[in-house]
Amino acid sequence: MNLPSNHPLVTGVTNDSPFVRAIHGDRPEITPVWFMRQAGRSLPEYRALREGTGMLESCLRPDMASEITLQPVRRHGVDAAVFFSDIVVPLRLAGVDVEIRSGVGPVMGQAYRTADDVARLVESELTEEALAPVVEAVGLTVDALGATPLIGFAGAPFTLAAYLVEGRPSRDHLAARTLMHADPETWDRLVTWAADLTGTFLRAQVRAGASAAQLFDSWAGSLSRADYEAGAAPASARALTHVHDLGVQVIHFGTGTEHLLRSMHAVGADVVGVDHRTPLDEADALLGGGVPLQGNVDPALLAAPWPVLEAHVRDVVARGRVAPAHVVNLGHGVPPETDPTVLTRVVELVHSL
Amino acid sequence: MNLPSNHPLVTGVTNDSPFVRAIHGDRPEITPVWFMRQAGRSLPEYRALREGTGMLESCLRPDMASEITLQPVRRHGVDAAVFFSDIVVPLRLAGVDVEIRSGVGPVMGQAYRTADDVARLVESELTEEALAPVVEAVGLTVDALGATPLIGFAGAPFTLAAYLVEGRPSRDHLAARTLMHADPETWDRLVTWAADLTGTFLRAQVRAGASAAQLFDSWAGSLSRADYEAGAAPASARALTHVHDLGVQVIHFGTGTEHLLRSMHAVGADVVGVDHRTPLDEADALLGGGVPLQGNVDPALLAAPWPVLEAHVRDVVARGRVAPAHVVNLGHGVPPETDPTVLTRVVELVHSL
Repeated sequence: MNLPSNHPLVTGVTNDSPFVRAIHGDRPEITPVWFMRQAGRSLPEYRALREGTGMLESCLRPDMASEITLQPVRRHGVDAAVFFSDIVVPLRLAGVDVEIRSGVGPVMGQAYRTADDVARLVESELTEEALAPVVEAVGLTVDALGATPLIGFAGAPFTLAAYLVEGRPSRDHLAARTLMHADPETWDRLVTWAADLTGTFLRAQVRAGASAAQLFDSWAGSLSRADYEAGAAPASARALTHVHDLGVQVIHFGTGTEHLLRSMHAVGADVVGVDHRTPLDEADALLGGGVPLQGNVDPALLAAPWPVLEAHVRDVVARGRVAPAHVVNLGHGVPPETDPTVLTRVVELVHSL
Repeated sequence: MNLPSNHPLVTGVTNDSPFVRAIHGDRPEITPVWFMRQAGRSLPEYRALREGTGMLESCLRPDMASEITLQPVRRHGVDAAVFFSDIVVPLRLAGVDVEIRSGVGPVMGQAYRTADDVARLVESELTEEALAPVVEAVGLTVDALGATPLIGFAGAPFTLAAYLVEGRPSRDHLAARTLMHADPETWDRLVTWAADLTGTFLRAQVRAGASAAQLFDSWAGSLSRADYEAGAAPASARALTHVHDLGVQVIHFGTGTEHLLRSMHAVGADVVGVDHRTPLDEADALLGGGVPLQGNVDPALLAAPWPVLEAHVRDVVARGRVAPAHVVNLGHGVPPETDPTVLTRVVELVHSL
């Protein structure tokens, strides 16, 4: 492992944690649980801290990003922290014109749709110097977390490219999917650049102290398997080469990806995230068995009466037992209007099973 | 068949059309083709006609709805017309407060989330009198179409209910999926009412002259198979009972529904629509063979250079040959910015294969 000597995985401080054991395929005494987007939106202490600070600015202020990352660990007793960031942070750090508009999402200064647009974009570089606030925030966080592992966070190249080509969030990512077929060379140039950008961002977090890494390919589910394999998977595999020599386990997540689970594992992931659509026993079978799974509590049930949610969580954990290992999580991020006390109760329930 | 004696399926005027033959599982000399949303957005003659008229108003003006329905048949030479309407039209006709906001979609006067909300909603009735403009528009259209069949149009109860519970379009339909689990009785009351509403709307179109019917369950793909079968399929089956005695073939369509294809067929559909994600040979295998298919040209490729689109259409038609019958269509609606000359060229290509 090419990790610094004070890294948690080298000192071993997080090695016996339920989360790190589970992502290595083990079955610890308690089933580990954390929630995508646990850091943020649903927590009043988060909203208070963010007051008056823009989203990307808050990601790039080390003290604030670290504090936001720690808040859900303190409150819920989850088994892992996930670094508070956004998939477009490395774009901003590379000098790309991007902002996050409240209620909309990432909006680019321009849409990158032509060979010339992309040729100019790929001139942008993500330097070590620019990554300093990320490295500092991860360092502060890991020091405070002790035995609780931190998960490094990065977007997959396809999802990043979808934002870049569309210029903003979209339902079907039509323009990105058009470019993939209309000009495969330009598309390849774009996702290759995005792979190195996001891989560099992830590597910085791991070297600074993250004990695992998760690649978010939120929009991969819009692709057919053939398109995923030709136009997205090679870039995801390339992104992951940036952390392979560091010896961390990688979780790969998308939504609406039942038809892509095998392909998403094959890019070099160790753990596959499963959304609420596919029961874990079916996901395990689709993956041919042998792959640790993460998921797949339906976020819609967080707002249902407790007995309904409890029965669902028990079912998710029971079905997850067919997989070699299971990290409980939601099938997608915590909805903003979620009552945070419900999340705490889910953690207690999972730990009691 | 309980159809009027002047109905196209009784007089037989549309019976030999490639479209009607294909949806009965036959292989006519030419492969039939039409496009979801062919009536509307992408056509300059549509935009000129609609100028100054709201979306729902245009659906309810018989002359306008009929003319819009006919425009793409004249221009592209497609093998079927689809009635120009919107899935919320029957809500409006039943007196529910709904409007279609440009660039947003259907927006309700209120979100229907509680037992009381739903109890009040289900008091609304869709009368024969209210359906008069629809019946008139269909009659005008069928007279003008002659041997070209008209497809009746209706939303599936789940998708309608998703709009009603959310109050507006949403990405994940969380509130609807919460209600389905949190209060199954209220949910059931809501989708049962929506089933009768949309079934009545569809029946009126068929009796007035439509030679086939399509049920659009655009958001069904957000459901797990278990949730679809428990919370959506029974209502879709109920909606279709409103037209079963009329002897028309029913096409059932959704997006992101690879995991639901069998269930969507089992509700009483004759033809299954397949989006761009699942190649038709795989869809045929998932359905166990024997089911006529509709689809599945990727709308993203309409904006690609012709040789790329041509190769894709040829591949779709070739894979569709494993199914007993195939109606070529897009995997989703025509994107608004589509060059209409491209659609015409696709029709010519499909007819030449």
